[in-house]
Amino acid sequence: MRQSLLFVKTQKTAPEGEEAVNAKFLIRGGFISKTSAGVYTLLPLGLRVLENINRVIREEMNAIGGEELLMPALIDKKYWEKSGRWGTDVIYRTGKIKPGMEAHDFEYGLGWTHEEVITAIARQFIQSYKDLPRAVYQIQNKFRAEARAQGGLLRGREFLMKDLYSFHASTADLELYYEKAKKAYKNVFKRVGLEALVVEASGGAFTKEYTHEFQVIHPSGEDTVYYCSKCDFAQNKEVFDEDRHKGCSGKLTEVKAIEVGNIFKLGTRFSESFELMYTDSEGRRVPVVMGSYGIGPTRVMGTIAEVFADDRGVVWPETVAPYTVHLIDIGTPNSARKKRVDGLYKSLQSAGVPVLYDDRDGVSAGVKFADSDLLGIPHRAVVSDKTGEKVELKKRNESEARLVTEKAFLSAVGKGK
Amino acid sequence: MRQSLLFVKTQKTAPEGEEAVNAKFLIRGGFISKTSAGVYTLLPLGLRVLENINRVIREEMNAIGGEELLMPALIDKKYWEKSGRWGTDVIYRTGKIKPGMEAHDFEYGLGWTHEEVITAIARQFIQSYKDLPRAVYQIQNKFRAEARAQGGLLRGREFLMKDLYSFHASTADLELYYEKAKKAYKNVFKRVGLEALVVEASGGAFTKEYTHEFQVIHPSGEDTVYYCSKCDFAQNKEVFDEDRHKGCSGKLTEVKAIEVGNIFKLGTRFSESFELMYTDSEGRRVPVVMGSYGIGPTRVMGTIAEVFADDRGVVWPETVAPYTVHLIDIGTPNSARKKRVDGLYKSLQSAGVPVLYDDRDGVSAGVKFADSDLLGIPHRAVVSDKTGEKVELKKRNESEARLVTEKAFLSAVGKGK
Repeated sequence: MRQSLLFVKTQKTAPEGEEAVNAKFLIRGGFISKTSAGVYTLLPLGLRVLENINRVIREEMNAIGGEELLMPALIDKKYWEKSGRWGTDVIYRTGKIKPGMEAHDFEYGLGWTHEEVITAIARQFIQSYKDLPRAVYQIQNKFRAEARAQGGLLRGREFLMKDLYSFHASTADLELYYEKAKKAYKNVFKRVGLEALVVEASGGAFTKEYTHEFQVIHPSGEDTVYYCSKCDFAQNKEVFDEDRHKGCSGKLTEVKAIEVGNIFKLGTRFSESFELMYTDSEGRRVPVVMGSYGIGPTRVMGTIAEVFADDRGVVWPETVAPYTVHLIDIGTPNSARKKRVDGLYKSLQSAGVPVLYDDRDGVSAGVKFADSDLLGIPHRAVVSDKTGEKVELKKRNESEARLVTEKAFLSAVGKGK
Repeated sequence: MRQSLLFVKTQKTAPEGEEAVNAKFLIRGGFISKTSAGVYTLLPLGLRVLENINRVIREEMNAIGGEELLMPALIDKKYWEKSGRWGTDVIYRTGKIKPGMEAHDFEYGLGWTHEEVITAIARQFIQSYKDLPRAVYQIQNKFRAEARAQGGLLRGREFLMKDLYSFHASTADLELYYEKAKKAYKNVFKRVGLEALVVEASGGAFTKEYTHEFQVIHPSGEDTVYYCSKCDFAQNKEVFDEDRHKGCSGKLTEVKAIEVGNIFKLGTRFSESFELMYTDSEGRRVPVVMGSYGIGPTRVMGTIAEVFADDRGVVWPETVAPYTVHLIDIGTPNSARKKRVDGLYKSLQSAGVPVLYDDRDGVSAGVKFADSDLLGIPHRAVVSDKTGEKVELKKRNESEARLVTEKAFLSAVGKGK
């Protein structure tokens, strides 16, 4: 993409009242735009980052047998009433407004989770033990009536969610799948560049067992987590039980952390409400055992922005970066040099390397470099009158640039994704 | 994909009260599931069709310079009030419910169109004539409080929409782009298998000029359209003006049609409400001229289902089909034959050919053939004890099958997409 043609430009300042580091840098870089508190537009560069995160998530969910589908946001009141969640205070209610109609008459709740809808659907297709196990997921916009929406992409009123649901003939089979899902989640976070702790947490209304959260240690996190320096023990403060850590000599540390995912053993909580039963091999009708597994791709994007920010912008990990190479033409417009940089741009495109080309005339080197740091693309490649026939290559997370031949440049970045 | 592992199964009947042909077949085939009136889940097979349609749309929108972004569904009341559209009767309103709160106090309208949001965003980035023209689009779920939602995917309360917005320095430049968009729209419909008439229609509250609708002639359509057998004249009944057709000897025909897309010259309707101004080359501040261009991918999917249905199911055009090949193993389970069909399945997968493999044991040939017709995958490839070392190949839209060698089969379907 030629930078001169981008719909979006970088900005010197973030809007007033925007406190979160992720939102400030993402807005200044033109990745997102704030529509109202907790509600953001993903601008083209931001959508590229989000789609890279989604791609990783899809690959890992497909690898554990997940089939993708897409459920609606408008969920009829009757579903929520069946599970007893119509009264939840984070639910946005809506419906056709009739004269004199009041809030409590509304007919839909906007989906903030989809256990109800998927369980009702599964009932149409799961009849026998031969139909189990199954797993389906979606990546879809969710809504939560958050009283406080001040964390940028970390706590939105509208946000993207990947929610996977699994269906099993027994608790033992759920346990096996749960461990597979845990592994897949670890893969997702590792691949997008995040180190996530697997933390025991409360099952809330779902289950008396522990559930697991994936927590990224960071001061901007809303959660408090204890973790051990030696063993795998990690617990959310909400359920912290030092007795569970007996027998290990490791030291426990208290940290703030951002929750980027969670996995739940739902058991038969929803299959009982929705009569999702199957016939076992001995002809008995028994409830299906379910699991539920969530990752917020927009929150993951916000977390990456918090974790990888320096004082100049976000340093995107290569897997999620909006482009791999930032090719920059510096200096007084000069047709010979322009022709050469245009050629490099085309070579990269032909090789399938995602490249942003700063071809803007009349913009100073200083401004171009500052924009490049703010955009945080992993490889910066500068061509100027000073670089002669070579290219000045620098990684966003390194301070040293090196002059390389065009051939060496193309081979260094030319692998694509 | 192995059919034995699919989350979804075909169904013998559609739910009661579902009148639309598209919904009946799509539900029976397991492409969609009805969550409530006018609200559907896209099941895995249906999502594959939808994503194929979206892929074509994205390619054509990118080709006319559109950059993809993603706006929210929650649109703050202040945006609608600025444009004067808060009172629109198709808008779903929502917000945080407080005690004693009534419907009219709500703070958000769910997006049924995004002129307001995109114009406010464009104001941040478009300052000068040098920033024009620009075009951005999204593919996103939209909401309309339809009193009557009985057309299956043709008239939903929640549906997918591709909306593109263009920004120009002059009406002349908008006109040029409008013709480009018209061409891109024609390409989209042609590529997904639909013949769409370009029909003059009313601009409604937007513009006094004609707008253009893309209409597919079909008895299940809600619109009435007049078109000429000889020239390009076509008008929606709403604006029909026979005088406009003077001088042509062609015959006008009245038909029912399904609207699958529409394009509008917005002019300065929204740039004036949102003060989206730019500085022209002579230093004057003037309003940006805008266009708006919509296609409903879920409605396109419903239209394809209406148009290409026969008495056994939907015959998917190859471009949008959920899979290209339906590979079917017929007969008493037999390990030698199974091994051979497994081999064909793997060969197709390696060649990148989307293939659904009906590997189900204990299902009769009759049921497998009926399912195959209902699923409507373009190429049906049967292996049974009767086919010997060959494969029985039949197109869904043809009645004659032919026996071909494995090599000929792979080469006939092996090009992928």
